Amino acid sequence: MAGKSLGERLAAGPVICAEGYLFELERRGYVQAGAFVPEAVLDHPEVVTQLHRDFVHAGSDIVEAFTYYAHREKLRIIGREAQLEEMNRQALRIAKDVADETGTLFAGDICNTNIYDTADPASHRAARAMFDEQVGWAADAGVDFIVAETFSDAAEAKLALAAIKAARLPAVVTMAVHRAPVTRDGMTPEDCCKMLADAGADVVGLNCIRGPKTMLPLVERIVAAVDVPVAALPVPYRTHDGEPTFQSLRDPHCDCLPGEMPFPVALDPMTCNRFEMAEFAKAAHALGVRYLGVCCGAMPHHIRAVAEALGRTPPASRYSADMSKHAFFGTDKSLKAKNREFSREL
Amino acid sequence: MAGKSLGERLAAGPVICAEGYLFELERRGYVQAGAFVPEAVLDHPEVVTQLHRDFVHAGSDIVEAFTYYAHREKLRIIGREAQLEEMNRQALRIAKDVADETGTLFAGDICNTNIYDTADPASHRAARAMFDEQVGWAADAGVDFIVAETFSDAAEAKLALAAIKAARLPAVVTMAVHRAPVTRDGMTPEDCCKMLADAGADVVGLNCIRGPKTMLPLVERIVAAVDVPVAALPVPYRTHDGEPTFQSLRDPHCDCLPGEMPFPVALDPMTCNRFEMAEFAKAAHALGVRYLGVCCGAMPHHIRAVAEALGRTPPASRYSADMSKHAFFGTDKSLKAKNREFSREL
Amino acid sequence: MAGKSLGERLAAGPVICAEGYLFELERRGYVQAGAFVPEAVLDHPEVVTQLHRDFVHAGSDIVEAFTYYAHREKLRIIGREAQLEEMNRQALRIAKDVADETGTLFAGDICNTNIYDTADPASHRAARAMFDEQVGWAADAGVDFIVAETFSDAAEAKLALAAIKAARLPAVVTMAVHRAPVTRDGMTPEDCCKMLADAGADVVGLNCIRGPKTMLPLVERIVAAVDVPVAALPVPYRTHDGEPTFQSLRDPHCDCLPGEMPFPVALDPMTCNRFEMAEFAKAAHALGVRYLGVCCGAMPHHIRAVAEALGRTPPASRYSADMSKHAFFGTDKSLKAKNREFSREL
Amino acid sequence: MAGKSLGERLAAGPVICAEGYLFELERRGYVQAGAFVPEAVLDHPEVVTQLHRDFVHAGSDIVEAFTYYAHREKLRIIGREAQLEEMNRQALRIAKDVADETGTLFAGDICNTNIYDTADPASHRAARAMFDEQVGWAADAGVDFIVAETFSDAAEAKLALAAIKAARLPAVVTMAVHRAPVTRDGMTPEDCCKMLADAGADVVGLNCIRGPKTMLPLVERIVAAVDVPVAALPVPYRTHDGEPTFQSLRDPHCDCLPGEMPFPVALDPMTCNRFEMAEFAKAAHALGVRYLGVCCGAMPHHIRAVAEALGRTPPASRYSADMSKHAFFGTDKSLKAKNREFSREL
Repeated sequence: MAGKSLGERLAAGPVICAEGYLFELERRGYVQAGAFVPEAVLDHPEVVTQLHRDFVHAGSDIVEAFTYYAHREKLRIIGREAQLEEMNRQALRIAKDVADETGTLFAGDICNTNIYDTADPASHRAARAMFDEQVGWAADAGVDFIVAETFSDAAEAKLALAAIKAARLPAVVTMAVHRAPVTRDGMTPEDCCKMLADAGADVVGLNCIRGPKTMLPLVERIVAAVDVPVAALPVPYRTHDGEPTFQSLRDPHCDCLPGEMPFPVALDPMTCNRFEMAEFAKAAHALGVRYLGVCCGAMPHHIRAVAEALGRTPPASRYSADMSKHAFFGTDKSLKAKNREFSREL
Repeated sequence: MAGKSLGERLAAGPVICAEGYLFELERRGYVQAGAFVPEAVLDHPEVVTQLHRDFVHAGSDIVEAFTYYAHREKLRIIGREAQLEEMNRQALRIAKDVADETGTLFAGDICNTNIYDTADPASHRAARAMFDEQVGWAADAGVDFIVAETFSDAAEAKLALAAIKAARLPAVVTMAVHRAPVTRDGMTPEDCCKMLADAGADVVGLNCIRGPKTMLPLVERIVAAVDVPVAALPVPYRTHDGEPTFQSLRDPHCDCLPGEMPFPVALDPMTCNRFEMAEFAKAAHALGVRYLGVCCGAMPHHIRAVAEALGRTPPASRYSADMSKHAFFGTDKSLKAKNREFSREL
Repeated sequence: MAGKSLGERLAAGPVICAEGYLFELERRGYVQAGAFVPEAVLDHPEVVTQLHRDFVHAGSDIVEAFTYYAHREKLRIIGREAQLEEMNRQALRIAKDVADETGTLFAGDICNTNIYDTADPASHRAARAMFDEQVGWAADAGVDFIVAETFSDAAEAKLALAAIKAARLPAVVTMAVHRAPVTRDGMTPEDCCKMLADAGADVVGLNCIRGPKTMLPLVERIVAAVDVPVAALPVPYRTHDGEPTFQSLRDPHCDCLPGEMPFPVALDPMTCNRFEMAEFAKAAHALGVRYLGVCCGAMPHHIRAVAEALGRTPPASRYSADMSKHAFFGTDKSLKAKNREFSREL
Repeated sequence: MAGKSLGERLAAGPVICAEGYLFELERRGYVQAGAFVPEAVLDHPEVVTQLHRDFVHAGSDIVEAFTYYAHREKLRIIGREAQLEEMNRQALRIAKDVADETGTLFAGDICNTNIYDTADPASHRAARAMFDEQVGWAADAGVDFIVAETFSDAAEAKLALAAIKAARLPAVVTMAVHRAPVTRDGMTPEDCCKMLADAGADVVGLNCIRGPKTMLPLVERIVAAVDVPVAALPVPYRTHDGEPTFQSLRDPHCDCLPGEMPFPVALDPMTCNRFEMAEFAKAAHALGVRYLGVCCGAMPHHIRAVAEALGRTPPASRYSADMSKHAFFGTDKSLKAKNREFSREL
């Protein structure tokens, strides 16, 4: 599909997009939980490049510039506002290089500003200015399209979309739906997505915050409500009806946490396995979702499971599990029978 | 501590060793579960280099050549026996480069052969030959010491130790203790470790198979039994008395598995969080353990937690969590109060 | 339906049978776990009467004489063999009284002998003799039919059936299927049930050992294989594919157990709630099961949930939950608004 | 100890009190969840008598009249206010009969009114009137002392205590501490208990709402703060730091719930086993708690575990588990070896 646009790829079948770079680089030791700013772009660019390659190797069709939270408000809070433009331009360059070498799509990325306030018109203008500057750098870098993601407010998402459309670029716009199944400004996910599609978004849907089990019921209603392709990029955590978001998850089996919340740095034991992510991908695809991915918490094996569930064999499938050659549990005839017997004692 | 030997470092305080490269590279998409051979050394050397750097960045004092299961029996089973020497020499070169650039120790690595059979003297000779060839390549590469690990049989560990001692290198020898708390040939862990120390091992202990909770009681008895430094490198999984090993763990909350066992590719939701690994490190240190690490399943954040629990500030501590600047849960005064209020709805 | 036979009731719709007296009286303090002999029949007859009434109140259509394990081999092991006949006759009398007062069916009960051994013909004769004496006492008491239950061996079940048929009584015969989904003598559940139906059993199926989730797939195959009504009486525990029986369940979240197994006296935190038992009843009914119940672990609220799931309103439905009048969570307008607000802090 | 007063028994050693009648009779089918009024006292008095006997048999030193929530406000909400006096007098009679026949203490019981409002002085007078009428009936029946329990407001507990003291009866006063570890009117548990002890309470402490793990840390501070005996009667549920009360518990492993909360009718799979309750009893006793029990959710086996943990052998200990005679897992030599081997397959 190298050389094809997002629209052409979507017309031909589902598109896979790995997200969640912040959490994976946090685990690898290069992003600070809390502020969650992609400083690694400047401090350790080689690990960002490698992560992009890992996700493409595992099946992602898209490389997103790692500019999530690389915006003016976030850089202000960590005291690196002077490096705003440098961080954005370098993140775009890193992503473009990997997209070019692998024949994948190259996407810009903007997100929730954290300054937007429904009741404060000045905040709307400031948010729009933040979107405009990031969209401008992305346009300069030659992105194929821009992802605008993780919005709590429908109206903030619409502002981001307007900034992308002003730059005449395709837009993928996804909302983050918290515990109450409405946006922070009170729209149902399907009404919000319908509004965004009507305003020109090329793909609409949900990302982050909710795991597969609590995101899919909302996505089903979005598919029924809109005519554009729908996106679903859950976090790979075992959220459920009583704790529908990864912030609301609790861990009854650990006294070791500094507070009540496993979010964001103690979610390990709620992580979905690859088989659950494969089930998610199949279920989402069956519901009509066309743009599938995994957000915060995703590791490459989750992405490969999504890709294989959709019938793909990405490069990493060369290393997909084959237990027939396991020394103890394997069935290969040349393995020692004694070890196979012992496997019951392991 | 750069320039100091293993013995000098141990005399000065605890030493940290990250292991578990197979599982982490399996998740990253470059190792095949089942055979678990480190083919990435030849196929994707850059990801092995990066992983070594990640673990040193997170606090490991040691870089082990990724030669676990790079032995004659394993390469036979995957049909790459002809590349045996090449794979070992390249793994040693990759590890040496990272150790040199970071001032850490450089270790060779040998392990269970899977052909050793108590009742078959010919298998003993064949195992010893496998050890000798790998130890020889490691000695050529200039390793500081050799790790011999994951043995089920005490007598096989002793053979490995003899091979290392014949090369006049320091030896760290660690056993894998399965469900029954004895070696496969029937020794208690403490008797086995005493035997290995008496035979010249510089460090003895346990690695792999068991999580913190089910490894520590065995380690306590080893510390009491031997005079040399003791090692403990559990897997970061929530094993418990009823399911003491990661092969025996079951997942009651998932119908998605192809078989009964989450091991080895669906253990995600049994993973220990970083706070549990910190507790492990403190408890092990308090018991007198001097060589601490984490085995299969380890991610860099686990290693950093071990390092910080021992009072270290490895380079990755620069990115340790600081929730004060989180947009919704943070306490920084310049954050929007409205978002803080909303955090209850997340 | 008072006055109708088992056959007539089954022709008119599903029949509900509460079992699991041993576990419920163990929790109430009148049965000893281990031997699990119904000594309460002699030592505390009033608690047995009350338990029968509790289960009929909750929706059971059948009162089984509490003669499970009141057989010669079990009384031998606890040294009360001399009271064998007295215990059986009293259990039958207690059950008959409750069945008569409530218009429910009165059933005898025989079960696995624990002496049956496929390879030992003498054990076959001894088992048959044990069945004959218990069936004889049941026939004397005027039972409507006899339940023969919890057999591991197909051939032992067939012996029990022969004893019942010799007494010209209807027979409900149910097998206990352990981890491997075959009888101890190697038949699939469906082949075994087909064989029993061909030999004259009026109802065939499964009871005990497996929870809803791991029993239903086996029951589905039995329904497809036989022409007689099928029975399903799972234990109300959260068994799953990795731990399909209640003996194989493990509890990762408790260090307090004396051994590895929560079975039989620490299964509390694996207990199914009433909503899960209702789901079981609906699913089983949809599969074509006609004789439904719950075995070891059942409490009256589980039976009521089964009954209500089938559209019944047993006497205990008078006390089914109605949260509208809860002081804090209720919606009744005369409740204090202040308490409703406070409910978020509970 | 028959014939001894509460004070004399406390001077001689710990006292055990089973509570939680509402939940156990709800499971048995005779109490409606929601309103939670003890209508069984009038509708099914025999099951109340039997429950009292079950708990004394299991080790309770006290029989409480089942008058919890048998107060004017609760009877109003279910439309049975006219039977208020009749229900109280009958509950007292039932409890007295069992206490007399077993030589245990006979206690009255009053509780939170649900009408008390800190800001409304008229509600204080109404609450006091409700206490006075129930205390009066209890005094008439000849109770040994009165339990005043499950108060959220310190000031409401103090009103109840005043009513008991006006009747010149000993008082056991216990608070229910919700998620925030303070009373609804803002006192720490230890300050509240100190205030109650200073006002004449004979025993002070906590009951209900919290499980062992989240109640004990609060109790420890109470023991340090007061000179009178301290009570601890947790619910037998696995509450933890993130979900410290049984209303806040969530069940990630069930999609079957009608709402988010397992409370109050789907808590089964969070139930503590008997070994956990024994650990609680030992820990509480070691902390200096003198009046121990279990509240909502308690079954007789929990009470027996508490009693045995304190060195008692109540009548039900006659039936405490002895696995040596289990047909499959037992060690008795006269059991069939074949079954013991088969136990690995169960």
